[in-house]
Amino acid sequence: MTDPTAALAELETLLGPRLGTRAADLAQHAASETHVRAGLPQAVAWPETVDEVARIVAICAAHGLPVQGWGAGTSLEGHALATRGGVTVDFARMDRVLEIAPQDMRVQVQPGITREALNTRLRDTGLFFPVDPGANATLGGMAATRASGTTAVRYGTMRDNVRGLQVVLADGRVIRTGTGAPKSAAGYDLTGLFVGSEGTLGLITELTLRLHPVPEAISTAVCAFPDVAAAVAAVVVTMQAGLQPARIELLDQAASRACAAHAGLDLPARPHLLVEFHGSPATVAEQAALFADVAAEHGATDLARADRPEDRTRLWKMRHAAYPAILASRPGAQGVVTDVCVPISQLAQAVAETQADIAAGPVPGPILGHVGDGNFHAILLVDPASPEERAAADRLTARMAERALRLGGTVTGEHGIGLGKLGYMRAEHGPAWDVMGAIKTALDPAGLMNPGKLVPQD
Amino acid sequence: MTDPTAALAELETLLGPRLGTRAADLAQHAASETHVRAGLPQAVAWPETVDEVARIVAICAAHGLPVQGWGAGTSLEGHALATRGGVTVDFARMDRVLEIAPQDMRVQVQPGITREALNTRLRDTGLFFPVDPGANATLGGMAATRASGTTAVRYGTMRDNVRGLQVVLADGRVIRTGTGAPKSAAGYDLTGLFVGSEGTLGLITELTLRLHPVPEAISTAVCAFPDVAAAVAAVVVTMQAGLQPARIELLDQAASRACAAHAGLDLPARPHLLVEFHGSPATVAEQAALFADVAAEHGATDLARADRPEDRTRLWKMRHAAYPAILASRPGAQGVVTDVCVPISQLAQAVAETQADIAAGPVPGPILGHVGDGNFHAILLVDPASPEERAAADRLTARMAERALRLGGTVTGEHGIGLGKLGYMRAEHGPAWDVMGAIKTALDPAGLMNPGKLVPQD
Repeated sequence: MTDPTAALAELETLLGPRLGTRAADLAQHAASETHVRAGLPQAVAWPETVDEVARIVAICAAHGLPVQGWGAGTSLEGHALATRGGVTVDFARMDRVLEIAPQDMRVQVQPGITREALNTRLRDTGLFFPVDPGANATLGGMAATRASGTTAVRYGTMRDNVRGLQVVLADGRVIRTGTGAPKSAAGYDLTGLFVGSEGTLGLITELTLRLHPVPEAISTAVCAFPDVAAAVAAVVVTMQAGLQPARIELLDQAASRACAAHAGLDLPARPHLLVEFHGSPATVAEQAALFADVAAEHGATDLARADRPEDRTRLWKMRHAAYPAILASRPGAQGVVTDVCVPISQLAQAVAETQADIAAGPVPGPILGHVGDGNFHAILLVDPASPEERAAADRLTARMAERALRLGGTVTGEHGIGLGKLGYMRAEHGPAWDVMGAIKTALDPAGLMNPGKLVPQD
Repeated sequence: MTDPTAALAELETLLGPRLGTRAADLAQHAASETHVRAGLPQAVAWPETVDEVARIVAICAAHGLPVQGWGAGTSLEGHALATRGGVTVDFARMDRVLEIAPQDMRVQVQPGITREALNTRLRDTGLFFPVDPGANATLGGMAATRASGTTAVRYGTMRDNVRGLQVVLADGRVIRTGTGAPKSAAGYDLTGLFVGSEGTLGLITELTLRLHPVPEAISTAVCAFPDVAAAVAAVVVTMQAGLQPARIELLDQAASRACAAHAGLDLPARPHLLVEFHGSPATVAEQAALFADVAAEHGATDLARADRPEDRTRLWKMRHAAYPAILASRPGAQGVVTDVCVPISQLAQAVAETQADIAAGPVPGPILGHVGDGNFHAILLVDPASPEERAAADRLTARMAERALRLGGTVTGEHGIGLGKLGYMRAEHGPAWDVMGAIKTALDPAGLMNPGKLVPQD
């Protein structure tokens, strides 16, 4: 059934020079930001319209060729990598803002726009798009992987901030999900189904996103805790008291040391919380003061407020540069980044067990967490020349996933499944994984949309 | 294939007296709160465990008998009514709280518990479940219909407040969706798919719900506006300014008159907003003052603050009693309640056109709205002896739905599809409705789960 030659000829007729088959094109789309690797696609397509995307998918369907979407290549789990060749659809040329509706606090965009470009475009509206996974990912990729990040504790994840989609299905049909209204009770939540479906049910060609008012005032603080358990306990009390941190980030001892060294800041080598409040000047001042009290009751010291924009920027730059900072803490190391999420009541135990597990082996692994969500990451620093360390990192990653499940959590809070976590889906979902498989089969019976991902494989 | 006698015999062996086949049992489950009517089920089952639910569904599947779930019978669109007989599964005996996890701000419940009973059980935790559709519905029913209500503007709908489910599928398999963690990026969002699926994909047998801190302070106010457009404009500015009303409710002229008369309050016969803020005493005072400024700029008068609990209770009692109050304004009338939702930028126009449409006909129809969400209801007061009025109400309802679609909205913000709105699904969703049908067929190939509802009918 598969006939790549005929398919590629049809695609070239459709796209001309916007179909790439040179080795460099293919290689560029065979590696994303981390260690995860797969095979090469047979071609890369750069469509400019939804009609072109629909025709690409229809041609691939007719010839039995796989199709995977590509955003900015910032996936940490290899979501967009080809497992069976086929065509990688790169959305770089579909990066427009289609409509800003400030009264409705809503924007309509093409999937290839990055979150930084979107927020630049929104600058004069008094509104912003809050979801911030760290990397300057595309909105299409963020929706496909259900991304979140530091601000999810207040503003939610992509699940909460995508109002509607346009999607090209496996047979080339184009559908719209959602409406312009803020909510609906009319039928299955297809928007929610496609968000996080990792390209296995269709390609997202347009997104309607929810916007939020730029806060009038922002207050940021950082403080040190005697141990991770005390920091987590402070977060639980903060949330239960009804404070609404816009971000509340944990850096463990090792992460604090690496980040402070890299940023030239003077932080004690203890676990830290970075916290930020958004609102009116009076509200953020009140919430920051209440947080300081809660933190102090849990043994926090060295609390530093950063209310001036330049101090705030320095602190969050440090947090956002955590990955290079941690990499720099072991020169020559390769980073293996893994992510789990647990009930917040289990977070201190999950982090403590993970730290002990890391300490018992050869691979350093500073820990960072979006602690208000129970979500944390280990950045395992592996000597690429050492098969032993690589194997140790794999075992640590596996035990983190198993630990998260044992503690009632999920094997990934925000990085997604991709190629790295497929082996845990049965353990996490049980027979519900077969329901995902049944939905996949119903919408993509030939299994051509991002094959080898997310659902049970035959 | 259908063999009700054998199926009912097996069910009676399973359930004994908890299988009801008397005329009174059947009639009680053939009418919900509004005018929508369908046929009788052949039996009513009152299971006590998930295993019993699974066996009921398996027995019905083996004999080709339809199955529909039943909560409190408060549906406004006839969701739970039998269209082809079969067994109605009444969850009245599955109404327990299974686990309260205060640190995780989470509760696990059976589907038959009502929201009032749940909040009573939560009273000592400092937490509450905010979704409030007005009626004292069951949580299972609220999830199945993606209910929302007055507080959705701040706390979200059932979509945002259900973290996980246990579901009995059409073949009797039992699955769990979601985890104990606050978020996950591991696979299709099955929780979101079952929320709002109106019993067509399975029966919900357990829910994990998100809780919120009881606010330290609450501030409520009511004020009159010269017209609906001014009230809506005030709401837009309020939301864009980053104020976070916990409720913001519109009563049009007719609704204000009826509600005030019923409650013995003295309100001018103009459109009103009722608004409430939740937070610390300082925050709610600041937000209430800012709202008062915004309202005044839009011509609001007669602003009355209700900060004392008894005054607040009186105001919200008036709002919650709107349905009986409006019914009482035309003695002997039957209420036909309909609901649409539009982008907030279109709300003033949608309400104005609806008011004009109502005024041109014989049927009075006060309008109430969850205006922060663009969601509003008309309560059409029909003389049950007049076929003309009944037909006029049907035409008004149809035109409201068509108007909502024309203005970029949805035919139902929160009441759901049930039997009343099935005819608008194609217009709202286009080919996406076929995707819903494909999912239904994949999970319920025999079409026995709440047949005649939600998806394209053969």
